[in-house]
Order: sequence, then C-alpha cells, then structure tokens
Amino acid sequence: MGTHDILLKVKNGDISIDEAEQYLRRQPFEEMGYAKLDTHRKIRSGFPEVIFCSGKTDDHLLNIFGKLYEIDGEVLGTRATINQYELIKERYKEAKYDKVSRIIKIEKEGKKKVGKVVVCTAGTADIPVAEEAAQTAEYFGSYVERIYDVGVSGIHRLLSKLDVIQSANCIIAVAGMEGAIASVIGGLVDKPVIAVPTSVGYGASMNGLAALLTMINSCANGIAVVNIDNGYGAGYMATQINRLGVKQ
Amino acid sequence: MGTHDILLKVKNGDISIDEAEQYLRRQPFEEMGYAKLDTHRKIRSGFPEVIFCSGKTDDHLLNIFGKLYEIDGEVLGTRATINQYELIKERYKEAKYDKVSRIIKIEKEGKKKVGKVVVCTAGTADIPVAEEAAQTAEYFGSYVERIYDVGVSGIHRLLSKLDVIQSANCIIAVAGMEGAIASVIGGLVDKPVIAVPTSVGYGASMNGLAALLTMINSCANGIAVVNIDNGYGAGYMATQINRLGVKQ
Amino acid sequence: MGTHDILLKVKNGDISIDEAEQYLRRQPFEEMGYAKLDTHRKIRSGFPEVIFCSGKTDDHLLNIFGKLYEIDGEVLGTRATINQYELIKERYKEAKYDKVSRIIKIEKEGKKKVGKVVVCTAGTADIPVAEEAAQTAEYFGSYVERIYDVGVSGIHRLLSKLDVIQSANCIIAVAGMEGAIASVIGGLVDKPVIAVPTSVGYGASMNGLAALLTMINSCANGIAVVNIDNGYGAGYMATQINRLGVKQ
Amino acid sequence: MGTHDILLKVKNGDISIDEAEQYLRRQPFEEMGYAKLDTHRKIRSGFPEVIFCSGKTDDHLLNIFGKLYEIDGEVLGTRATINQYELIKERYKEAKYDKVSRIIKIEKEGKKKVGKVVVCTAGTADIPVAEEAAQTAEYFGSYVERIYDVGVSGIHRLLSKLDVIQSANCIIAVAGMEGAIASVIGGLVDKPVIAVPTSVGYGASMNGLAALLTMINSCANGIAVVNIDNGYGAGYMATQINRLGVKQ
Amino acid sequence: MGTHDILLKVKNGDISIDEAEQYLRRQPFEEMGYAKLDTHRKIRSGFPEVIFCSGKTDDHLLNIFGKLYEIDGEVLGTRATINQYELIKERYKEAKYDKVSRIIKIEKEGKKKVGKVVVCTAGTADIPVAEEAAQTAEYFGSYVERIYDVGVSGIHRLLSKLDVIQSANCIIAVAGMEGAIASVIGGLVDKPVIAVPTSVGYGASMNGLAALLTMINSCANGIAVVNIDNGYGAGYMATQINRLGVKQ
Amino acid sequence: MGTHDILLKVKNGDISIDEAEQYLRRQPFEEMGYAKLDTHRKIRSGFPEVIFCSGKTDDHLLNIFGKLYEIDGEVLGTRATINQYELIKERYKEAKYDKVSRIIKIEKEGKKKVGKVVVCTAGTADIPVAEEAAQTAEYFGSYVERIYDVGVSGIHRLLSKLDVIQSANCIIAVAGMEGAIASVIGGLVDKPVIAVPTSVGYGASMNGLAALLTMINSCANGIAVVNIDNGYGAGYMATQINRLGVKQ
Amino acid sequence: MGTHDILLKVKNGDISIDEAEQYLRRQPFEEMGYAKLDTHRKIRSGFPEVIFCSGKTDDHLLNIFGKLYEIDGEVLGTRATINQYELIKERYKEAKYDKVSRIIKIEKEGKKKVGKVVVCTAGTADIPVAEEAAQTAEYFGSYVERIYDVGVSGIHRLLSKLDVIQSANCIIAVAGMEGAIASVIGGLVDKPVIAVPTSVGYGASMNGLAALLTMINSCANGIAVVNIDNGYGAGYMATQINRLGVKQ
Amino acid sequence: MGTHDILLKVKNGDISIDEAEQYLRRQPFEEMGYAKLDTHRKIRSGFPEVIFCSGKTDDHLLNIFGKLYEIDGEVLGTRATINQYELIKERYKEAKYDKVSRIIKIEKEGKKKVGKVVVCTAGTADIPVAEEAAQTAEYFGSYVERIYDVGVSGIHRLLSKLDVIQSANCIIAVAGMEGAIASVIGGLVDKPVIAVPTSVGYGASMNGLAALLTMINSCANGIAVVNIDNGYGAGYMATQINRLGVKQ
Repeated sequence: MGTHDILLKVKNGDISIDEAEQYLRRQPFEEMGYAKLDTHRKIRSGFPEVIFCSGKTDDHLLNIFGKLYEIDGEVLGTRATINQYELIKERYKEAKYDKVSRIIKIEKEGKKKVGKVVVCTAGTADIPVAEEAAQTAEYFGSYVERIYDVGVSGIHRLLSKLDVIQSANCIIAVAGMEGAIASVIGGLVDKPVIAVPTSVGYGASMNGLAALLTMINSCANGIAVVNIDNGYGAGYMATQINRLGVKQ
Repeated sequence: MGTHDILLKVKNGDISIDEAEQYLRRQPFEEMGYAKLDTHRKIRSGFPEVIFCSGKTDDHLLNIFGKLYEIDGEVLGTRATINQYELIKERYKEAKYDKVSRIIKIEKEGKKKVGKVVVCTAGTADIPVAEEAAQTAEYFGSYVERIYDVGVSGIHRLLSKLDVIQSANCIIAVAGMEGAIASVIGGLVDKPVIAVPTSVGYGASMNGLAALLTMINSCANGIAVVNIDNGYGAGYMATQINRLGVKQ
Repeated sequence: MGTHDILLKVKNGDISIDEAEQYLRRQPFEEMGYAKLDTHRKIRSGFPEVIFCSGKTDDHLLNIFGKLYEIDGEVLGTRATINQYELIKERYKEAKYDKVSRIIKIEKEGKKKVGKVVVCTAGTADIPVAEEAAQTAEYFGSYVERIYDVGVSGIHRLLSKLDVIQSANCIIAVAGMEGAIASVIGGLVDKPVIAVPTSVGYGASMNGLAALLTMINSCANGIAVVNIDNGYGAGYMATQINRLGVKQ
Repeated sequence: MGTHDILLKVKNGDISIDEAEQYLRRQPFEEMGYAKLDTHRKIRSGFPEVIFCSGKTDDHLLNIFGKLYEIDGEVLGTRATINQYELIKERYKEAKYDKVSRIIKIEKEGKKKVGKVVVCTAGTADIPVAEEAAQTAEYFGSYVERIYDVGVSGIHRLLSKLDVIQSANCIIAVAGMEGAIASVIGGLVDKPVIAVPTSVGYGASMNGLAALLTMINSCANGIAVVNIDNGYGAGYMATQINRLGVKQ
Repeated sequence: MGTHDILLKVKNGDISIDEAEQYLRRQPFEEMGYAKLDTHRKIRSGFPEVIFCSGKTDDHLLNIFGKLYEIDGEVLGTRATINQYELIKERYKEAKYDKVSRIIKIEKEGKKKVGKVVVCTAGTADIPVAEEAAQTAEYFGSYVERIYDVGVSGIHRLLSKLDVIQSANCIIAVAGMEGAIASVIGGLVDKPVIAVPTSVGYGASMNGLAALLTMINSCANGIAVVNIDNGYGAGYMATQINRLGVKQ
Repeated sequence: MGTHDILLKVKNGDISIDEAEQYLRRQPFEEMGYAKLDTHRKIRSGFPEVIFCSGKTDDHLLNIFGKLYEIDGEVLGTRATINQYELIKERYKEAKYDKVSRIIKIEKEGKKKVGKVVVCTAGTADIPVAEEAAQTAEYFGSYVERIYDVGVSGIHRLLSKLDVIQSANCIIAVAGMEGAIASVIGGLVDKPVIAVPTSVGYGASMNGLAALLTMINSCANGIAVVNIDNGYGAGYMATQINRLGVKQ
Repeated sequence: MGTHDILLKVKNGDISIDEAEQYLRRQPFEEMGYAKLDTHRKIRSGFPEVIFCSGKTDDHLLNIFGKLYEIDGEVLGTRATINQYELIKERYKEAKYDKVSRIIKIEKEGKKKVGKVVVCTAGTADIPVAEEAAQTAEYFGSYVERIYDVGVSGIHRLLSKLDVIQSANCIIAVAGMEGAIASVIGGLVDKPVIAVPTSVGYGASMNGLAALLTMINSCANGIAVVNIDNGYGAGYMATQINRLGVKQ
Repeated sequence: MGTHDILLKVKNGDISIDEAEQYLRRQPFEEMGYAKLDTHRKIRSGFPEVIFCSGKTDDHLLNIFGKLYEIDGEVLGTRATINQYELIKERYKEAKYDKVSRIIKIEKEGKKKVGKVVVCTAGTADIPVAEEAAQTAEYFGSYVERIYDVGVSGIHRLLSKLDVIQSANCIIAVAGMEGAIASVIGGLVDKPVIAVPTSVGYGASMNGLAALLTMINSCANGIAVVNIDNGYGAGYMATQINRLGVKQ
C-alpha cells in the first residue's frame, strides 16, 4: 500500500489518522530484524532495491527475495552462486540465472529499453563484470550495446567501433591490468565515461588497485571511477545518466 | 575557421581543394613544437581546450593562451598562480582571476547557464576545490548552486538543503578527511553524484587517499569518483551529464 | 582462592605465612609451559581473562578453558569454530555456542546487566562482528541494545533510532565498505563512539583498511577506532566506559 | 507540521493528497530541521564549538573567533600560528597563546576541573600533541595529570608512575616511532586508554602510520585510536569518558 | 694463473699481449672461481647448508637431503610438511620431525651447546616461529632458553624473567600483532636483540607488516629486524653473535 | 574515401556540406580501419598470437587454440593447467606440455634458433617463471642459455658464468625475495637486462612487490622491469632485442 | 694508460712487473677516497661513466668532472643545477647546459649519431624527463627523434606519427598521470618499448607510482619499465638496444 | 616492604586486609623501582646516554648537553644542525662538529678502540649515514674501518676489499636505492651484517622503503635491518656485537 493509497483512505475515512500514522512511520523501511529493507528508496531514487547475494544465508536470501518480489513484482540479485539460484528457483520457477554475470532475476515482461548505454571491455576476462553492468542497466530500463575485447594493445579494434561508442548517452569502460582503455575512450567522446577497474591481472595489478589508480589519474576529461569489479554500480549510474538523456 | 566554413568556401569555389586539404590536415591539432593543441577536440567533445597552468613556463602559457583565445574567443586556465595572472593580464586586459579557485579566464558575455548542477562541500577547507568545479561547470554553460560546509558531523545541515540537492541533474560532492558526505548524498537523490576527494586533512588522511578510498567504497549507488582535488574534472563531467538533462 | 581469602586465612592463622607466600608468588600468572595465564589480570583490570580460540590446538584450548572455568566459574571464548565448540561441549555440557558471533561460553546465571551500550551496524554483513561486541559487553555485565542495518545510504533508518542511540553511555559503530556511519553517529551524540571497521566489502575496501582509514579520519569528535573486525575489543572498552557511567 | 497535522488536514480536505505527499516525502529528514537539532545539540553535549585555526584566512578566523566569544564568553583555537595569535591578540587583549600546543584561547576564570585524565607520552618530542590533548581536556573541565617521557625503552620510568596512571578515569597515551606505550599501559589499568599516534620519527615511521598500526594492533584490551597528532580529538573523547566517571 | 704470472709470461714472450689482455679482463672476478671460494666459505663460516623445504619437489628434496647428509653427516630442513617428512623418513630412519616448528632433521649426537641465546615470544601463537629460531640455533651449537607468552599486555610476566634474559649473549624477540615486546626487551638488556615479526594477528596487522614496522621504528637501541616469520634467519644470526661471545 | 575525394564531391555538389562534415569528424581515426591495421601488424611483428590460458573456459580455449593452429600451424599457450592440456591433447595429439613452465604448445619442427638470450635465476624456486621466459623466447626463434640458481648470496656462482652471460644479446634476470641479482648482472654486461620479479618469498616480500621495487630502483644501468612472474613478457621482449642483434 | 700500454711496456722492459701489477690492481677503479670511479666500466660496458650531479658537493663535483674529462675527453652530468653549471663553466669554458633536461656536458665534436631511437611523451610536462633520455641517448651516439605531447586523451595525435614511431629500433615512452601511452605504443610497434613513468600529476598519482603501476601491468607485449623520472636510464638502455640494431 | 613482611603484619594485625591488598596489587611492578633499575642499567650497559639533537629547543639541548657532560665527562649528539653546534660551542669550547655525519661531540682523549667493525656504503650519497654509524661505534670504543662506494653495479670494487670485510666482528652495510649490497656481503662473511637502508634515491625508492624491503627480504643469512638512515642504531648494535668478540 503506497503513500497515495493511504492518504486516499484517510481522506475517505477508510482508516483512522492513527492507523495512517502507523503505516507511514513504518514506510521508509521494512523492519526484518536482521535487515531493514529500504522500501522508501524507490520514492527517493526511482530505483527498486536490489539484493547483493554474496554471503547471505539461505533464509535471509529467500525472505528478502520474497519481500521484494511481493512489493515490486520483479527482483534483481547480484553476485549469486549457482546454489543460491537453485534455492530461489525451487520457490520461484520464473527466476533466471546468468552464469557469466552471476545475476539472478525475475523480470517483468515487455519492459521498454530506452536511450543507449555502451559497455566496453579491454579483454575477455573483464566480461563477467561488464555483464553485471550491462544487465543491471537493462533491468533498470536502459538500452545497452556491448563492445568487448577492444583493449589498447590493439587500438584499431576500439577505433573501428567509434561510431557506436560516440552514439551512447553514457559509456562504461571495464578493464583490469593497466586499465588504459578508459582514457582512450574519454578522449574520443563527448559523453560521460564510467570507468570500472577489474581484478583481472596478476602480480603488481594488486587485484585491481593498479587499474583503479590508472583510471583515477586519467588525463582525459569526463571520466569517473567506481569500485573494483563494481559492475552493478556502473550499470546503476549509467542508467541515471541515460535517463537524463532520454526523459524530456 | 571551422570545418563548416572551409567546406562552404570549397563549395563556393572561394578556396581550392588543395588549400582546403591544407587546413583540414592541420585541424586535428595545432603543432606548437613543445605542444600539440587539440583543436579537433571541440568537434569531438563539444568542449573547448582548457589550460592546466600549473608548472607552465611564461612563454608557453602566453602562447597557448593567445592561441586558444584566437580560436575560441574565450579561455579558461586552472591552477594559475597570481604571477601567471599578472603575466596574462598585461597582454589581455579582460582576463579575470579568482583567488579561491585559482582560475584565470576570459569569458564571453551573456553566456546562458542551463540545467542545474549542485556543488556540496563537507567543510570550508574544501571550498577551493569546489569552486574550481563550480566555475568550470559555469564556464561550460551549466547553472550551478553551491551548498558549502554541510559535512556529516552535523548531518542536519545537509538535510535542511535536501530540496535543492534533489532538484539538480548532477551533484558534485567535495570532501577531504573521511569523505563520508558522498555516501549520504548518494542515498538521498536519484541523480548521479560525482565525488571529489580533497587533500584536506592530516595524518592518516594521506593527502586525500583516505577520502578517495571512502568514496570508492561507498555503499550508496550512483556515485563515481575523480582524482584528489580534481575540481575541474568534476565540473567537466557534471556539465556532460547536465547537458543530457537539458538538451532535448 | 583470591587475594582476600588468602589474607583472611593468614590473619586467622588458617595457613602459614610460607604457604601464603607460595600462593601469592604464583598469583600474577599461572605457568602452563606453553602459556602464562594472566591470573593477576582480574585484580588489575576487573576483567577475567578471555580465550581467543582461533588457531589454538585442541589440547591447549581444553586446558586453558578448564583452568579459567576453575578460577572464575565462567568462561568466554571468541572466534571459536563449531568443532572447537563440540570439543568443549563434550566435557562441559553447560557450554553454549553462538554461530553468528562464533562465541563459546559458560556464563553464570542471573548476572545483572547495567547501564547501556548501543551497538549499530551499517549493513547486515557486519552483524557477526557486532554480535561479538554485543555479547562480549553483555558477558562483562553491560546492558546492550542492537540497532542493525542503518548505514548512511539510507540515513533515515539511522535517524529513526536517534533516541535509543542518544540514551547510551557508549556507542559501538560497526561498518565495512566506506565506514561512514561512525562519523554520522559521532555528530549526533554526546557520548564516546567506538568505531569498528569490518572486512566486509570487496575491491578497494582492502579487507577493511578503507573503513579503518575513514573512521580514523572522522571529522566528528568523540570517535576512536579499534582493529578491523575487533568486536571483542570494542565490547571490552565499551564496558569500561559503561561502568564509569554506572558505578557511582 | 507533523505527520498528524498533515493527515488531519487531508482528512479535513484542507490540503490535497498531492500536497500531502509532497510533505511526507521529505519528512524522514525534515523533522531534523536545522535550528531544532542545533539547540538540541548544544543542550545535550555541553561542548562549545572549537576553532581549527590551521589554514583559516585572517578574516574568517577573526569572525568565527568573535562569534564564538560572543556566544560562549570563551574560545578555544587549536593549531594556531604565532601570527594568528597576534592577529587575535590585537582585538582581544585577554587571549593567551601556548607555543608548545599552539593553542590560542580565552578562558573563563575559576572553571572547576573534575575527575582525572592522565596524559602520558613516550618521548619529549610527543609533548606538543600531548599538550593539545591535555589543554583541550582542561578547557572542557577535566582535571589532568601529565606524565611525560616514559617510553618503553626504559620501562621502569612508566612503572614508577603506576599509582597515578591507575587512578585516572581515562588515560591518553601519546607516542610516535613504534608507539608501544599504549599496549603496556593498556595491560596495567582498568580504564579506557585513548592512543594518539604522533608523526614523531623518521624513515619507516612514515609520519606516524607505523605508530598508528602498532596501536590499532595492540594485544592489550581497552585501547582505541585516534588520528595521527590528533591531540584535540583525544582530549575531547577523554572528557566525555571522564564526565561519565564523575557525573553521578 | 695470477697477475704476476701473466705479466711474467708477457715479459718472457710466452704469451701475446692480446692473450694477456684476455686474461686480465676477467680477473677481478675470475679469481673468485667456484671451487676456491666454496672451500673458503666452508672453512670460514662453520655453518653447514640448510634446506628450505617449502615448495621443493619430492625428487629435489630427496637429492639435496641425501647430498648434504653425505657431506655433513647431519641435515636441517625448515618449513617441511608432514608429507615431506614421511618421504624422508622412508629412506632415512633416523630423521626426526617437529610439528610445531615444522623442522625435519638428522642431528649428530652429543653435540655441545655453548653460550646462551634467549628466545622470547609475545603470545602462544608466535611459538612456531620461535621454535624454528630456537631449534636452528641449537642445531648450530647454541645453548637456548625459551621464555614464551610474555607479551606487553601483562608486562609483569616479562619482568619476572629479567635475570634469564639479561644473562644471554643475544635475545630473539618474536611477536605478531603490535610487536611491542622487542622495544621493551631492548630497553632492559645490554646485548643485541634480533626482532622477528610474525604473521600472527588479523585486520590491520597485514600479515605481519604492522609488527615489522613497529620493530623497525623501535625507540630502544640494539635492535635489528629480520623478515616476517623468519625464525631460521634469527636463529642463524643469533648463533653468529653467540659464537663471538663464546669463542675466545 | 580520402579527404581529397570528399572535397571534390563537395565542390561538385555530389554531397552536402553536412555529409562531408560527418565524414571528416571521424577521419583522424577511421583511416586506421580494422582489417588494414591488422594485416599490417602481422606482417610487421612476426610474432604470432599467443594464448594466456589461465581462466579461459574449455570452449573458448579449444576454439582459440584451433583457430590459431589453423592460421599459424603452431600454437603457444601459457599458464595452462594439466586439465587444460588434457583437453587440448584429446583433439591435438601433437600438443606438448611442460609442467614446470605450464606451457602447452604445438611447435613446427626444425625451427632455427638464432642469436643468444641468457636466462638467469637467483634461486631454484624462480625456475618456473624462468622457463616460461626461456621457452617463449625459443618458440619465437631465439637461442637460449639457462643459468639457474646463481643468486647474490653466493656471488661466485654468478661470476663463474660471466663469459656466457657477457656473450648474450639480452639477459633475463629472474628473482624473487630481494631480487638483487638484476643489479649485479647489470653492472657486468654491456647488453640490456630484462628484470623479472617473482612472487617467490614470504612475509615482507609481499608476493613479489619487494623484488619489483628492488629492480626498479637498481643502481646499475641498462635494466628495465616487467610485471611480477611475467616470464612470457620477458621472453617476448628479449626476442625483440635479440632479433635486432641478429638480423642485419 | 690503458691495459694494452701497460702490457707493451712490460714486454719492452720499460716498467717492472711490480710496477705493472700496481697499475693493474688500481685499474678497475680510481680510488678518490670518498668515491671509487669505475674506470673499468668502459671495458665492461662500452659506456663511459656519467655523473649524477644531484646532491654532490662543489668539491666532489669539480674533481670527478675533471677526472672523467681527463680520461674520456668528454663528460655528461645529469640532474645538475644552474649553480653547478656555473661552477663547472668557470673552469671548463666548453661546458654546455640545457635548462630543460638539467644536463651539463662537454661533448666531442663530430660525433656520429646512428640507428634510431624515438622518444614520445604524453604531455608537455613530461618533456624534462624525455629530454634527459633523448640527450643521454644522443651523447652515447644514438640518432633520436622526439614526438612530444601525444597522450592518449587525443589518440589521433599519436596515430598521425605512427610511421616515425614504427621506424625506430627502440621507443622510449614517457608519461606521468595514468601513463597509458606505453600500452598504446606497445600495441603498434614490433620493437622494444622502454616505459618511463614520471612524477607529473597530483593526488592519487602518488608522485609517479600510479604511472609506474600502469606501465608494469601493461596488456601490450614488448614493454619494460624503469624508475620514475629515470630519463637517463631509459636513454642508456635504448642505446644498448639501438646499437644491436646497427652494429652488424 | 616484601611479601613476607606484609603477611607478617597481617598475621599480627598491624595492617588491615584492605591495606595489604593495596600493597599486593602493585607488587609485581613496584619491585622494579625507578632508582634501582637505573643504577643497574648504567653498570650493565656501559653505554652513556646520547642526544638526538634534531628538533630539540636551544634550552633543552644546552641543559641536557651540560648534564651529560657533567656525569660522563664526554657527550655525543646526533643529527645536530650547524646552528646547534655554534650554540654548544659558545659554552663548551672543546666541542667538535662533523658536517658530514652532523655529529657534535666532546670526547675523552686517549680512548682505546678495540675489535673491528667495518662500515660499507653502496654509493657516495650514503656516506652521511655511514659516518653517523662509524663515529657512533668509535665513540663507544670500537675500532672502525670504512669501505665506501662499493655498490653492486661494480661488484669488483667490493670484492677487492673482501679481506678487510672478512676480518671484522660485525659489518654495517649502508645503501639506498635498491640496497642489494647487504645480500652480497652477507653471502661473503661469517659475521653478522647490520643493514641500514638510506633515503638516497628517487621515484619508487619511496625515501628508503624500497631499500628496507630489499634488505628485509635478503636471501643471504646473518642479516638484520634497522630503520632508514639510522646510522646511530647500527653503530650502537655493532658495538654490542663487537664487544662480544673482544671481551674475553
């Protein structure tokens, strides 16, 4: 029952002011004891809450999944294991799982995908993070194009896709190792670039810290950086930007 | 003389094809020996080139400044010393200097400021970086509102400005020390937040690295981070985002 | 047999001075070959010794557990595995184990819990550390209230609990990722805040170092920090502070 | 206007449902309005605001100083230069400056100092930070005893002062280099120890980071750590703790 | 062929100037020929070669073990797994294994242990490293006394053993976590202290780096540091020092 | 379509100015079209593509392997597991696997090995990385000599091999722990030294970062460094250098 | 007096064998009390010794400069201040100074420059380091071409110079900030690339460490890295490689 | 008052049980009373106190200097500025200053120097730290030989001094940059090597941290490390070791 419904009932005398207050006080978040689902979030941000599955106990996962499904009619869970998927699957037959991105979801059908977000990766090993970004953006309603394995060690691969890249409202650049792709893209477009360092690499890559530093120190303009392997965060922010480019 | 003008002259037979080729070949960058001004940039990105004054010799600064003024009719220089300003001032009387942001500029009059970018700081010591961001965004045509000194140690100060913050197309959150303000704002808005760590602090702040890490690890969504003290970069990207929210 | 008892017996002539010296000489610590139990600690600090179970061999654990049980009539063991619990359980039927905090204990009944310590977490993943803190404080006689999952990305969740938080003698703020919650709480209360960074997070969280740096650099007053995941240490110090607020 | 009032007006048709929704959307935060919280904070904490002078412009410093003097009748400024003192001195003859701690203040006479805080340093070079802590605590009404130059390389110096140290409500342990003193004190007392790493040292001390790590990893209980050289923060928190030990 | 010989041959015309140049070009190094230096080293150091077993293949381990046994009649292997022991045991019945230190050895009987090395640990978890140090020193002929679990959080335990510690030619101080014990011992003795940081700890101990930094920054004199967990290196150097105190 | 053609068409009215601008905007990049550059690269470098097997799925590995085999008639795969080898082996009987270097390959027979590359290691544990380097260089046609276990703790071992080392066109120095061997070799030869830090070591070696720093800070000339454990990269670059020494 | 001369005199009986030994013993280095000039170096490496002027006292600098001038008839000094130049200039009128690279030198006339080394920079601020590299390579006899200010944020600038870059025997890539240029060049050439990170940048560039990490983690082949700002080292190694490409 | 006396008084009723408890609580420490330990230390160590002049105020310096002169008849001050020397000189005409080591001292005449300590440096820039070590050791009565500028980039310089190095009781190896000299010396001698990293270097030397890591990770035995630039600490410990080799 949303705010509007409550107010309507108050107006119509269907519920007392005290009852309404009761609802509204609880409304900003749903107390589950161990967790406080931020159900007020959609009002504030226009984005439904999403489940970070990694490390959740089976009970917690099932309860939160169920609650969100009930509220939104669809659910997105990131960093899910195959076991967690099977757990969910048993109760919710319509749940789908993508092995690459490790995303589990139930999605409303016929959702419209608008605008354009382009997701680029430097190598093939960066694809899992890129897919988390791409599928998140798609879940939130963005139209996404993928351009994978176009790292700077063969710059012509990237250049040959320039027209697609330049047509996006927002570009997500995903790279591990030295992470140079974000700077090159940043120099070629007039739209914001969200750089996602990945933990791909070895030795002095320090699990992605080197790529993060490369991206933060980029000499190109219009680049900002999210946490290592944070595909979800990039997909979320890209959607915020993409919506601005579409809305009016 | 822009690409359009050249093509027009070719069409009209005002210049020969050879002369036109001559122009176009030089167009992607202006070779100055020690530097290659990226004059093609405006075509690619819609943003004129800007001067990072710090460490430039007097000769270089004057020449680059003059060249850009000639091309664009206005110039923005960041991280300028008062001495550099006096040098420029002597030749270009219309140059203005802002001590806080250390920006030197000649700006076309009557420029329209559109959309809305909000720049927040945690403390007063973060204002120089914030002003670099705000004035950069304004130079590039964004309408900017400033909300300074609303750090998380007195959260009510920030909350009392929520309506303004929530009305922006993009929020720039500037903070040193522990840099927590970006997360709090991120949790309250539905637009992208560009987080700018500053070198404000002492001890374990490690000249801004602590704030950078805080912001990169933010538990809120819709936040991406630029380099420490990089107000210019934040203002640039905020304008890219703001234009998306305005253009159509 | 405590110091007081020995002296009483000396006074009453129940034991000889030589026998008493014998006891007292051994009192500052109990030599176990591989370990020196600090039995003098309770005199100095008012806190009985506690077992850090992690990595202890079965023999050592059993012996130390037994010794402390003999001396104090109750025992607290932290970071215990389920296997260690089963080992203890076999000999001491009254031992209890909590899976979340990984605490094993035998506790005297009817212990009075005084004053108030509030334990807050930013997320649900921080709860194991928070429970180690809370149960440690309770074992040492503090009354504890838990407020979990109130991180800064949804600041209203924290604000809705302000009255409880403000009523404590000491607040323990537990958070991983960016760890901003400690600063926000520090700005809202007049009592000391003990900040506990956790290893929750990924990428640039560097197993809790980022949260530790955030907390150490807090712009709020009245905050001090313990080691990453050190719930026990926070519960101990909170009890020291809580006792000051209760004692007189 | 509270929730109840809004609902009443909806019920009575005084405002539309849309207007009511407008109000309710911001309510989780707006009930924390600026003025209200501010007053509440003043009443609650009993700590007047303090000036961090470092880097303040002359104008800002004078204005803030004047404002606080007007409100509280006394002022404390930390990290002040001798020049800043002379600036203040010119207008406020009663201002005093302490070269060691770099504190500038005007203090009400006859202030009562209660409880006991002990401030220890490892070496003589740590005294400036210790004095910032001690004078801050005194300004806030704590009785302070100083025990300086009792580092662990001559442990007998510390042990000879044990009775004083054990009589405090809170101990502040200030040390650079290897910072081991906090652990030794922590093992000898039953009250909380606030550890302050200092930037004293050279080479691998990394301006205090080594001492910070030592203190955070302390094997003793009842120790928490503040930022490097943060004497003010330690004096503030020690006063919070000391007040608990005194108040009732 | 030495320089003198070459020159003589040149003088006598036995070799050409070109040939002589050939010889002389390599002479600064070649006079350090393999066999010669090797013999020299054996005579000089009196330390037989030792096997670092970790990561050795079965074949390599068996061959090296056999070779050394043949030459020296005894062998010491460090960081050996139980499996490696069983492998050796099968061929060399007299091999012994110590689970705590993970040392495997065949030792000549009736070896004299001279001088005195004292090995101290802060906690019980440091004992494996300490035993590697102690048994290495014993294998090389040092008399060793062990004083374990005397960390600074209960300083009386260490002080009660002062007479033993002060009677050594060299003290090895083994500690993880904050590693403060080395400084305290350094301040109490007139002999060199070899500090061994261990990887014992969690969180900000960073696998021993914090303890290493503490020890390197020690404010006490006469302390030098070896690598984290390097018990063998400490036992080796302690023996070098101990021999100096015994030999004459 | 070149610039000249476009201008001609503009002049002739065959295309509009707008269309021409469209072309020109992308021209600085599009002349680097995919196919052209690619062919150019093959002809130019003479290095066939190589497979980094680590983390590849079975399908991907098999497909890429097959494709390259088809094109080049031989394939080199690095960082392959034994399972990956068995997978390949099943389809390509002629595939060979080397357990030490973890290289899987099919190599044309009778390949000529020219010039000379010397690969040195400090210890035996560095050999896997050294073999990756050596076999890569051999696969690319370099003649390679191996000099293993000549670390600086027994400098005579290295010196006794000086003539071989000094006869190479390029020396690869492979070392973990303190990595000093690169500097010593650098001081003894007149050819470039490629230093490869390895993750061999423990404690403060930080998985090779210490060796990397040693090598980067070398006081000898003619040394450059590749990533930790990057034997492949060293073998590749050594071949580039070796070819220069051979070609003419 | 070289080795050949000495041997000739021995053969001719002009000097005794003892005198000859005296010479030869001293020959590998010239003992100057405070320094040991490595005059044997030229035999070993084919490169004369060079002076690192930074921090040398006036006396030391003059003496070493004089000695090397005497031996080689030319001298190269790096990192020289203008004052050091004036000091040298007074005694050696023919000394030249370059303000940008801070190189002081006396160079033999008519020196032949062979082969080709290309030195690229990402920005204009990297030029001082690039010039140190270029002028060092020239001093050692390499023909050098400079391509400055071709960083990846405007990739077309670099691509327009591809033919020159591809014609070199060795490329030196000089860059601060994110240092991505090395990877891009590495992907475009078949010759070795020496990457020189510079301390150009601010904030998270950490004085060049970020660029160093980028370059070490390069996904392109044929790249190795020297120390931050080490133009001299890059010029030296590039000459070694260039000589290989020329010599035969 | 010993334990026996206390118990006797309890038995006799001369003191209450409470009073007795009071005594006993402090007893484990109080037997280490100030005066007793102090005297004991003086007798034991034979090392007079030394002044670390850096940062001392003029007053403090003069007073401490005077006090120590009075007690010992000689004084050693390290890290003294020339101004501090002039201050001392005015009052104590016999004070001497060494610009290189920055040591100020008054030394008794005819002091005997015994045993042998050898101090080696890698370069000339390490000499100031080496001289602090050498002169400290000499002041404490060690005979010292200096071997400077024998770094590993010209290993023959070091090898030519092997006989002197091998004749010492203890070797101090001083080096910045990559610090490899300690490992090479460690492999050539049978006596302990104290490694002193220096802050000499630039870029990735990180003010000596790289050298420290090299030395701590040394693959040679018998090496331990002191803080960066800590010549004094090395000279002190070397004297402790040297005395062991001399005393009997």
